[in-house]
Amino acid sequence: MHKTILITGGARSGKSRIAEGMTLQMGQPAHYIATAEAWDDEMRARIAEHQARRGPEWITHAAPLDVMGALAATDGKGPRLVDCLTLWLTNLMLGNHDWRAAGQELRAALPRQSSPVVFVSNEVGMGIVPENALARAFRDAAGTLNQWIAAEADEVIFAVSGLPMKVK
Amino acid sequence: MHKTILITGGARSGKSRIAEGMTLQMGQPAHYIATAEAWDDEMRARIAEHQARRGPEWITHAAPLDVMGALAATDGKGPRLVDCLTLWLTNLMLGNHDWRAAGQELRAALPRQSSPVVFVSNEVGMGIVPENALARAFRDAAGTLNQWIAAEADEVIFAVSGLPMKVK
Amino acid sequence: MHKTILITGGARSGKSRIAEGMTLQMGQPAHYIATAEAWDDEMRARIAEHQARRGPEWITHAAPLDVMGALAATDGKGPRLVDCLTLWLTNLMLGNHDWRAAGQELRAALPRQSSPVVFVSNEVGMGIVPENALARAFRDAAGTLNQWIAAEADEVIFAVSGLPMKVK
Repeated sequence: MHKTILITGGARSGKSRIAEGMTLQMGQPAHYIATAEAWDDEMRARIAEHQARRGPEWITHAAPLDVMGALAATDGKGPRLVDCLTLWLTNLMLGNHDWRAAGQELRAALPRQSSPVVFVSNEVGMGIVPENALARAFRDAAGTLNQWIAAEADEVIFAVSGLPMKVK
Repeated sequence: MHKTILITGGARSGKSRIAEGMTLQMGQPAHYIATAEAWDDEMRARIAEHQARRGPEWITHAAPLDVMGALAATDGKGPRLVDCLTLWLTNLMLGNHDWRAAGQELRAALPRQSSPVVFVSNEVGMGIVPENALARAFRDAAGTLNQWIAAEADEVIFAVSGLPMKVK
Repeated sequence: MHKTILITGGARSGKSRIAEGMTLQMGQPAHYIATAEAWDDEMRARIAEHQARRGPEWITHAAPLDVMGALAATDGKGPRLVDCLTLWLTNLMLGNHDWRAAGQELRAALPRQSSPVVFVSNEVGMGIVPENALARAFRDAAGTLNQWIAAEADEVIFAVSGLPMKVK
């Protein structure tokens, strides 16, 4: 049965770990669709840490921009975990791509999937309004994208201190 | 039946849309008490976007400071939506008004209302502690005001990714 | 009966007040283990405000770094409230202590306690990614510490607008 799940939460709220567990429960091997790019040492360390936690039950696909292509290539071959939407949005915006068009295309593709898809996303809009206009535009875009995916999702989870809270 | 509702959440968490739906369900036409002021183009665009979403079932009242007056003027005439408390607080603080006195006066007026009131507010205290002392004072004030209104409210909702989570 | 409780939330979300109420319900007098240090006037004012709210049913212990020692000294003598983990982490990091070792030691000590322990902690990871690398490291550490304590806790509460949401 096809299922779309969104796991959202703050930094280090345990959302990736929760998402990994839920994905593997739906079938193995599972596909890890990684949107992270190793721009610098800090990012490289973060990616390495995530990879070390994942075992051989995962097949990794790098998709900093082409999440749609990765979903098409893996459909029918087991559950997919997209980690994460917020980095995908960052890559889209930094590359001057049309994030609204890409987000709507992703949303429209979800009902057509035959294998499950779990999305990890970040809450970035609960701090003080940023002074920087680009940061404000980013947090507006991130919130909008979360709403689009949540509207299509069968299940939405908000991670707090490593624990799941059911939203939908 | 009089009812007080608070909808809180991060930026672009869907709180205004949820609040609009709940307000219209309690009666039409409904009164939209807008605390936003068009300081700059970004704010003007945001206000225009909100207005475009609202249809003719709304009567709009601009109340950047005098929310009490707007509530008094509309009581008994249908449900009211105050969008939002955080901008009202911003206007009070920028104008050097006594936000504590104004907030307590608002809180005290709620049990006397005969028509429903729905408040939209923002969560601004879940990021890193701001380096700027004014920003710290603002987020403390915003949290305090939310607590005062939530204490009087019959229903409190926390919006995540466009979806409502019941708090009270 | 021994119980470990974690109350987390944003700035001015009412988490300390909720925690104080839950601690006193488990026995009186209760022990207040304070991690705050009066670095400056703003912090002094915040500490004074917290103290003014607490009555004679509290015995206060200052423990900016040695939370383990304060727990050992008070075990068997009534419920303890540690307020808060995030300031403890700040003190550890500013003093160049090994916060990971200290956090794991604290976590390991929890199952051995005979009196209840209530922890207050802060959500700091739901804003825009900070530009400052130290701030990023701090929010990662704060999230990790919250996860460790939440994993041991019997009960975890997320405070929103002064109201408790049950997480665990």
